[in-house]
Amino acid sequence: MHDDEIPGSSRPVRLFTSGEWTAREDPIAGEEPLELRLHTPKSPITLGVLMRTLGQDRELLLGWLVSEGLLPNSLELLPERENPNVWQLHTAEYERLSRGARLSVSSSACGVCGSGSIERLAVRSQSVVWTGGNLSPALLAALPERLLERQPGFAASGGLHGAGLFTADGELLCAFEDVGRHNAVDKVVGWAQLRGLLPLSGHLLVVSSRAGFEIAQKAVTAGVCVVVAVGAATSLAVDTAATFGVTLCGFVREGRLTVYSGGERIATLPEGRSRTL
Amino acid sequence: MHDDEIPGSSRPVRLFTSGEWTAREDPIAGEEPLELRLHTPKSPITLGVLMRTLGQDRELLLGWLVSEGLLPNSLELLPERENPNVWQLHTAEYERLSRGARLSVSSSACGVCGSGSIERLAVRSQSVVWTGGNLSPALLAALPERLLERQPGFAASGGLHGAGLFTADGELLCAFEDVGRHNAVDKVVGWAQLRGLLPLSGHLLVVSSRAGFEIAQKAVTAGVCVVVAVGAATSLAVDTAATFGVTLCGFVREGRLTVYSGGERIATLPEGRSRTL
Repeated sequence: MHDDEIPGSSRPVRLFTSGEWTAREDPIAGEEPLELRLHTPKSPITLGVLMRTLGQDRELLLGWLVSEGLLPNSLELLPERENPNVWQLHTAEYERLSRGARLSVSSSACGVCGSGSIERLAVRSQSVVWTGGNLSPALLAALPERLLERQPGFAASGGLHGAGLFTADGELLCAFEDVGRHNAVDKVVGWAQLRGLLPLSGHLLVVSSRAGFEIAQKAVTAGVCVVVAVGAATSLAVDTAATFGVTLCGFVREGRLTVYSGGERIATLPEGRSRTL
Repeated sequence: MHDDEIPGSSRPVRLFTSGEWTAREDPIAGEEPLELRLHTPKSPITLGVLMRTLGQDRELLLGWLVSEGLLPNSLELLPERENPNVWQLHTAEYERLSRGARLSVSSSACGVCGSGSIERLAVRSQSVVWTGGNLSPALLAALPERLLERQPGFAASGGLHGAGLFTADGELLCAFEDVGRHNAVDKVVGWAQLRGLLPLSGHLLVVSSRAGFEIAQKAVTAGVCVVVAVGAATSLAVDTAATFGVTLCGFVREGRLTVYSGGERIATLPEGRSRTL
């Protein structure tokens, strides 16, 4: 979808290899701050600042609003003319959003502990509902390589994460890259929100990174039932996925996968075999 | 230093490989929230909440305070007895810290853009000063493998980042692991702060991860002059390193290194050769 847009830029470098120095220009992962300002009758309120890779700011901001539980029913999102790293959010629900932004800061700080994080998420999220049918482990194991084909920025710079949305049949719907793995997921969620696809009850989220608590949290908030990560899963991500009914797979590479939760959606019989292990 | 402490825990998983399923218990990267509360004569103020791997909370919090420019001249740091994921900070300078915490939130949100981030960092940091002499590229290129030997949690779970502090001669002083790469660096900085080693004018910081803006920012704030990253560097990290005089090396693996800034500290003549490239 974005194969023609390679995010990032380049910098002059000196490369040391096999005892020799070479000077050259290397592609590099682009990183810039993005500020989201809520327009109010008084002064604007900063809802968030994200270090991100330029390119799909609208998708990123919409997905971030979904993930934070702040998305209004109706809104206008506009970059400032003089500084495209600042976006203005106009909505009639500015009072709820400014309260929500304050609440978000304070709620992340009341009696935190592992289970507390999951409980706070439960206040605004329900368990996910899967409509995609039984999943083939071989299909799941092949998804990261399919995503990799849509990570031109990673291929060029080695410094960007990717996230992609697939149907239960393995069709790739969209893929995004970003210097932040959480941003890449927010871009996917924002893309889906723009197309009215939320909650993502029949879709698979594939990430080129590890799956930590925040990845699991974003999946739950967007109604994603299946998360496939190339890297490791963390303890809190596994516990969150288990609590909300998310199928979480990690270390998905080279035909392998490790299932941490929600394994009932994955066929236990290997294709073409009759034994159950 | 911490080889006997393997952070994390384990979870039951199902592994799919070569068409077969296996049930087993896998080590997993531990992730839990940590809250830092500032004690004041009125009610306590939350300074920050970090998703971290348990183990070296004192080092993490001290390093985080250094990185945020909030470290008081005198302080007492204590975990709450009933919830060790909450730490209390007692200091006579609570007014400055509560102002600083508010400022930190608002300043990250005034007119942000790439150069704005670097300018805000410049308000509280100076260019770093290097006292370590000329560096051998072969020595630098070998450091990540030396750090890897001190990453037992990564070896077990595949889900933890590592950060280590080396002398200019390549002696490893400390190594820490964490689910967050920024936390791993903060633990190194906190370890050094506890021993009165700041600013780290003659030391090398090695990270198992990419080097983004926040890694460069933490290096600058702690006075680190040389950063060696196994992964890629981002555009804003390179620009920050260049602005403050930090030597930034990325993709340091298998005897190779890419120098993005501060190359004047690295010998340009390969060992045993007389040509200059």
